[in-house]
Amino acid sequence: MDNVLGVLNLGDFAQAFSKMGMFPVFDLAYYIVSILYLKYEPGSVEVSRRSPVASWLCAMLYCFGSYILADVMLGSSPLDYFQHNSHILLASAVWYLVFYCPLNLFYKCVAFLPVKLVLVALKEVVRTRKIAAGVHHAHHAYHHGFFIMVIVGYVKGSGVALISNFEQLLRGVWRPDTNEILNMSFPTKASLYGAILFTLQEAQWLPVSKSTLIVVFTLFMATSKVVMTARHSHGSPFTLIESWTCHLLFGSPLAGSEEDHHHAAAAAAPSSPLKTKEEQGEGVRKRKAKKAE
Amino acid sequence: MDNVLGVLNLGDFAQAFSKMGMFPVFDLAYYIVSILYLKYEPGSVEVSRRSPVASWLCAMLYCFGSYILADVMLGSSPLDYFQHNSHILLASAVWYLVFYCPLNLFYKCVAFLPVKLVLVALKEVVRTRKIAAGVHHAHHAYHHGFFIMVIVGYVKGSGVALISNFEQLLRGVWRPDTNEILNMSFPTKASLYGAILFTLQEAQWLPVSKSTLIVVFTLFMATSKVVMTARHSHGSPFTLIESWTCHLLFGSPLAGSEEDHHHAAAAAAPSSPLKTKEEQGEGVRKRKAKKAE
Amino acid sequence: MDNVLGVLNLGDFAQAFSKMGMFPVFDLAYYIVSILYLKYEPGSVEVSRRSPVASWLCAMLYCFGSYILADVMLGSSPLDYFQHNSHILLASAVWYLVFYCPLNLFYKCVAFLPVKLVLVALKEVVRTRKIAAGVHHAHHAYHHGFFIMVIVGYVKGSGVALISNFEQLLRGVWRPDTNEILNMSFPTKASLYGAILFTLQEAQWLPVSKSTLIVVFTLFMATSKVVMTARHSHGSPFTLIESWTCHLLFGSPLAGSEEDHHHAAAAAAPSSPLKTKEEQGEGVRKRKAKKAE
Repeated sequence: MDNVLGVLNLGDFAQAFSKMGMFPVFDLAYYIVSILYLKYEPGSVEVSRRSPVASWLCAMLYCFGSYILADVMLGSSPLDYFQHNSHILLASAVWYLVFYCPLNLFYKCVAFLPVKLVLVALKEVVRTRKIAAGVHHAHHAYHHGFFIMVIVGYVKGSGVALISNFEQLLRGVWRPDTNEILNMSFPTKASLYGAILFTLQEAQWLPVSKSTLIVVFTLFMATSKVVMTARHSHGSPFTLIESWTCHLLFGSPLAGSEEDHHHAAAAAAPSSPLKTKEEQGEGVRKRKAKKAE
Repeated sequence: MDNVLGVLNLGDFAQAFSKMGMFPVFDLAYYIVSILYLKYEPGSVEVSRRSPVASWLCAMLYCFGSYILADVMLGSSPLDYFQHNSHILLASAVWYLVFYCPLNLFYKCVAFLPVKLVLVALKEVVRTRKIAAGVHHAHHAYHHGFFIMVIVGYVKGSGVALISNFEQLLRGVWRPDTNEILNMSFPTKASLYGAILFTLQEAQWLPVSKSTLIVVFTLFMATSKVVMTARHSHGSPFTLIESWTCHLLFGSPLAGSEEDHHHAAAAAAPSSPLKTKEEQGEGVRKRKAKKAE
Repeated sequence: MDNVLGVLNLGDFAQAFSKMGMFPVFDLAYYIVSILYLKYEPGSVEVSRRSPVASWLCAMLYCFGSYILADVMLGSSPLDYFQHNSHILLASAVWYLVFYCPLNLFYKCVAFLPVKLVLVALKEVVRTRKIAAGVHHAHHAYHHGFFIMVIVGYVKGSGVALISNFEQLLRGVWRPDTNEILNMSFPTKASLYGAILFTLQEAQWLPVSKSTLIVVFTLFMATSKVVMTARHSHGSPFTLIESWTCHLLFGSPLAGSEEDHHHAAAAAAPSSPLKTKEEQGEGVRKRKAKKAE
């Protein structure tokens, strides 16, 4: 692979790309998209009116959840990243603009699809770099701790999604029926596979340089997420391979076969009826709350 | 401010006051008031009969929750404070006397209003010192981590309140609809403001000496809490300023204006219907449990 | 006690026994029994089909929960034990065989009562060693932290049971009404008493050598658990002493007395109606899920 890139004279580009600073442009895109997703969560706007402190804490978890979790996993202070005052101030400014900007102007600008697609692509650049940094950091602490490298890289890539139950609890919402590990979304799955790839690279079992892997994985993530965001899709490019692998290894029902079709369709979205039910419950609760107001 | 105190010859007093040891008198008052509040919690007496270990753990969380949380936040062992055997033994003795003293004598003594008011005042002395110590400790670990200082000071002042959901879970109670950050009580809010003040002082942006700040903040907290305890009030001296600030900054409905009055009244206590409902549920559960006995 | 053993020439045996390596035979038995218990949990097989990652994580918590918790308690990285790749791989292999072995062969072999009794006995050998190691490790970190020693030893012996609420949450199950501290099972109670004994020994308040204590406690645990497993009993040899001690110290209703009999019977199993109700709820949910398939 390095040879192909060498012929195309892309090796230098990969080097430069993998050394490029993330602050402030890419980090800003990361904060904006993350806090946008927070605003999409049902009830988060009410929380921002009632308790700005809770809303700010949730926004910080959305922006820095991956650092907090990775620090916890490696036994450091969970607040370690909060020493970077400029990052926190930037994320706080984004949070303020997304939730409290007059006429909702900022939100409308960044949620405008073409703008959002660019921001989403930039966010995936940060995610890939975080996974690589997480694996490298864990490698530094535990030279042969391959499981630790995968877990830390995974956690660095997935961030708040892995603790979404507790992030929701902070906003007064509790959905124990499901969690991100039970029903992995595309970014979480991709982070897991990415963490495995970067661990293999770090252990020198993958004949690719790290900068090349960063470029390739970034391109894959950015393309996938941009396409999925543009299509409002929640599918995943891994579905076919996963379906077969899980069928062979873990006896999961096969999504492709004729007979199992209905079965598989039900199994592929097992929590959706529960979730819908919960969301209804949530809706009822909100309606009640509105009535109370 | 220091000049005024200097004229009144209070500088020395402030110095002496801010160096005064807290163990055992003030700490004892802290433990008594904390465990008294635990006994007020519905269901805690039943738990103390059924599972003394769970009850003891809850009592320890009430007494040392602030140390545990602050140690977790700074990446130390959460059990670090438990090396002070005399403190743990004292708190355990208080727990035993409050819950199991024959004829409920100890409880009746310390819950007697005049005694309780003195203890509450002493407890606030400890709280202020904890906030100052927390900010100082965080400053020592992260010289320019102003957010970390505020968070550690806040956590040191609020203690178990911030993890009340999990403390309740230990007693078999689960109330996900609300938490201390979503509906801050007066001591939690005051701890946050105190932590901000002490951080400003530590960063030398506040032209006041630390000992003076400790004296002034202690006086404010002790007076407020004593008055509120005497009146059985749950109001807060901050309501007016907060209402205006939140209205201007975060678009929260204004409590004072005519038009919004009903709206605001409902918004100011948004969780109360839910809470009441839950407490009813709790009540039903308790009645059922009693019937079962 | 040492004298008696000396006369019987058992001192050398105790020394050898307490130095014996646990990996791989004893650890293998520990993993098999732990993951067997995970498979007994309602819903865990469905989770293993739907989300192998969640199932694997639960299995790791069952096998290494005690290390994770003890590391958290002492402020180390919770992933610290995961640097032992061979242990993780062995436990993963056991997990795979228990859940996905064709014809359920492995499960049927190890769940066959005579085999299971041997494995259960071996597991208790590991548990005792873990308690002793936990107390020793805490003693090393805090020389006079007797409470810390007891807590770390307790946590090392009880493992995943203490965080069962959160382990269940990972599988989409939430039972806040009960937890292991509120309703201690026999192994958890025995771990607590064992941790107290080993702490007394470490503080040299118990006139017994550590190796002797390990042998005696192992014998007690293995015998008790084997008898209880053979009889499918959930009783505890401590019931009588506990009942009297709790009655005298904590005013708990006495299980033995005539008058209190009905009262005590209800109080001794206070959560059972709730639990049953929950299990019914669980059953309903599972039936619904099956219908959906």
